[in-house]
Amino acid sequence: MSILKTDSERLKRFLTEIAVFGATENGGVTRLALTDEDRDARNQLKAWFEEAGCETHVDRMGNMFFVRPGRNRDLAPVLTGSHCDSQPQGGRFDGILGIVAGLEVVCALNDAGITLERDFIVVNWTNEEGSRFTPGTTGSGVFAGKLEREAMYGLTDRNGLTFGAELERIGYKGVEDFDPRPLHANFEYHIEQGPVLERQGKTIGVPKGIVCLRWYDVDIKGVPNHAGPTPMNERQDAVYAFSKMAVNIFEIGLASNDVVTTVGEVHPQPNSRNVIAGDVHFTIDIRGWDETETDRVCSEVEEAIRKNAEATGCSVDIRQTWAVERAPFQPELVELIHEKAGELGLPALDMVSGASHDTVYINQFAPSAMIFVPSIGGRSHAEVEETSWADCTAGADTLLHCILKTGNDPEGVTYAMAD
Amino acid sequence: MSILKTDSERLKRFLTEIAVFGATENGGVTRLALTDEDRDARNQLKAWFEEAGCETHVDRMGNMFFVRPGRNRDLAPVLTGSHCDSQPQGGRFDGILGIVAGLEVVCALNDAGITLERDFIVVNWTNEEGSRFTPGTTGSGVFAGKLEREAMYGLTDRNGLTFGAELERIGYKGVEDFDPRPLHANFEYHIEQGPVLERQGKTIGVPKGIVCLRWYDVDIKGVPNHAGPTPMNERQDAVYAFSKMAVNIFEIGLASNDVVTTVGEVHPQPNSRNVIAGDVHFTIDIRGWDETETDRVCSEVEEAIRKNAEATGCSVDIRQTWAVERAPFQPELVELIHEKAGELGLPALDMVSGASHDTVYINQFAPSAMIFVPSIGGRSHAEVEETSWADCTAGADTLLHCILKTGNDPEGVTYAMAD
Repeated sequence: MSILKTDSERLKRFLTEIAVFGATENGGVTRLALTDEDRDARNQLKAWFEEAGCETHVDRMGNMFFVRPGRNRDLAPVLTGSHCDSQPQGGRFDGILGIVAGLEVVCALNDAGITLERDFIVVNWTNEEGSRFTPGTTGSGVFAGKLEREAMYGLTDRNGLTFGAELERIGYKGVEDFDPRPLHANFEYHIEQGPVLERQGKTIGVPKGIVCLRWYDVDIKGVPNHAGPTPMNERQDAVYAFSKMAVNIFEIGLASNDVVTTVGEVHPQPNSRNVIAGDVHFTIDIRGWDETETDRVCSEVEEAIRKNAEATGCSVDIRQTWAVERAPFQPELVELIHEKAGELGLPALDMVSGASHDTVYINQFAPSAMIFVPSIGGRSHAEVEETSWADCTAGADTLLHCILKTGNDPEGVTYAMAD
Repeated sequence: MSILKTDSERLKRFLTEIAVFGATENGGVTRLALTDEDRDARNQLKAWFEEAGCETHVDRMGNMFFVRPGRNRDLAPVLTGSHCDSQPQGGRFDGILGIVAGLEVVCALNDAGITLERDFIVVNWTNEEGSRFTPGTTGSGVFAGKLEREAMYGLTDRNGLTFGAELERIGYKGVEDFDPRPLHANFEYHIEQGPVLERQGKTIGVPKGIVCLRWYDVDIKGVPNHAGPTPMNERQDAVYAFSKMAVNIFEIGLASNDVVTTVGEVHPQPNSRNVIAGDVHFTIDIRGWDETETDRVCSEVEEAIRKNAEATGCSVDIRQTWAVERAPFQPELVELIHEKAGELGLPALDMVSGASHDTVYINQFAPSAMIFVPSIGGRSHAEVEETSWADCTAGADTLLHCILKTGNDPEGVTYAMAD
């Protein structure tokens, strides 16, 4: 018995052509939210989806909903999608794979002449990465009612430009909201962004949920001074204080079985070679599946920062700027992904997602699950990020069959919300 | 018996008026070499010196020589001066004090109707700080024949602008060289930039010389990756590697009795809060009076960097980008400063200079010495940098009497070169 498949070549073409917008010299993309590159990619998606017969809706956060009408438009729709913004010098798969795979599912259904019972929606969520405007997952957060739209409009980037003005500038500030709720089911298809699938030789990752997340912003204040005449024992060197903290923060993560800790941004002032730094601003990213262990690690990190500030004669200001609880997914949908991967002959693995995704928010009001495919070398948020075309297609096939099943669920079938 | 003095009010006015060029909100100056601010300060100096009867000469490096003619213009001239460029967010005294004090000496001599035997030259050396174009002390280095003019023209700033083009743009690329050599004596008057004079309650610092200096540029290469899904024990985190190195570098300096070590610049890539840094570029500044001990510290620092790179799975590239030998000053001129401070009733202290100065280069071909005054709180290369007006004047008085003495040295008197 033959089984419906997506078109690997077409999917590859979509991925290759969209990677042009913000392409970097080394094969990655820099497509920060609400830049010209983001706008150009959005325009391309809109053209493709409309060519494939979808309706486009843009809400006031710039979220784009591409709707393939079902037979019974009164039923709750099924949804998939992700984001088309990227990290600075990021990869060609992170986020965008989940949108173009949704497009490929639309095309495969079209080719097979299949009309689903329910509307099928592919979404592009605005500003998932949060690297230009912090916090990230802004579009899905406002959609979920967990972030305030006006507050998000007021976010500023490093040049003082606001989210609201930039959204308007690129032409994606919708004039009204589009609300397809209730949703019958939500699947987000994404690259793993870690080394686990590759190491275990599996093709499809089936996360039981997304780890919890804490973000910190830390400001150290020392005493700026000339690098020559100031005796070592009279220095209040903010770079030294920072370094002691960063060593501790990494090693606290290393000692935990569950939690990972990352110091990603470091901004010394004045950042001059013959001046003892008077200030250092830095960020911390802490994640784990176990909320209790994660909070214990946070406390240990905060204590290490205070202790090292004191030991180096500096003062310090520590702010937890973002906290997201862990998101366990809907068990029947998690099981459905396993079942469909099995039918397709694809080896699958139970896991957790270490990365946050828009589905963290969608999971709060709609039955949700995610599909992962391997990241070569475990690399992501980097220009070398890569997933084989075969694995991209395997994930798209799995998504196709999850959509076929849930999109054809008759009236009356519902999935309970996850805990 | 009354003794000739400078005019404290006039000196204060010169210092206050020149601090307008590049003034920062917090009372400092940002007047990087060859910027519009540097140009405006140069124009002001030229106007003042010419009003005081001096000739102006600008050489091909943009060094400005203001010459007050002596009675016998065939004799070797005496020279003083410093630099008018500053650190980013630097202070109002570093460098510029030595130039405007020279101007005040000219004015005080004018007021007293004194013509010296020898020409008296006040100089503004181009790009002492090296914070925009590295290395620093560029103008004096080329003047001394120790740096190549064409190579210095090719130095680029972070925006890719060249020294040569910027020098031309601000209108200070002279068309021929001005060479007043041989010089009879050179005095550089400067703030201490350290806490020693203040701590010991002395007004005039008399350094026996300038410490030696080594600069390093270091590049760490790790593996950039997503902050969530990458297990701690599989990371090659360049910020972690950097932090371990920077802790060691500080503590190696702390353990030495003679040498100081500073990590001033840190540039991680991509510098994003949810990405493990793949690269860190940083700088090290190492100084000491004892060359052997300084080189021992350099070896220990290099070894610590390599060891930590290996321990964190990163690779590293270490380059010593600048090395300056220590500069012992001319003993008779050092003694003369002591003698003149004593005659003025100013408490003086033997010391070394931890900061490098243009006199490092001038000292190589002309008998040289320096005059220091206290930095309040030992602070320099910072906006809060401060020296009391009384101390500024005390240093200017000392300079005046050193110039009066050496500028009137008759034909035949010479000072031996320092070792």
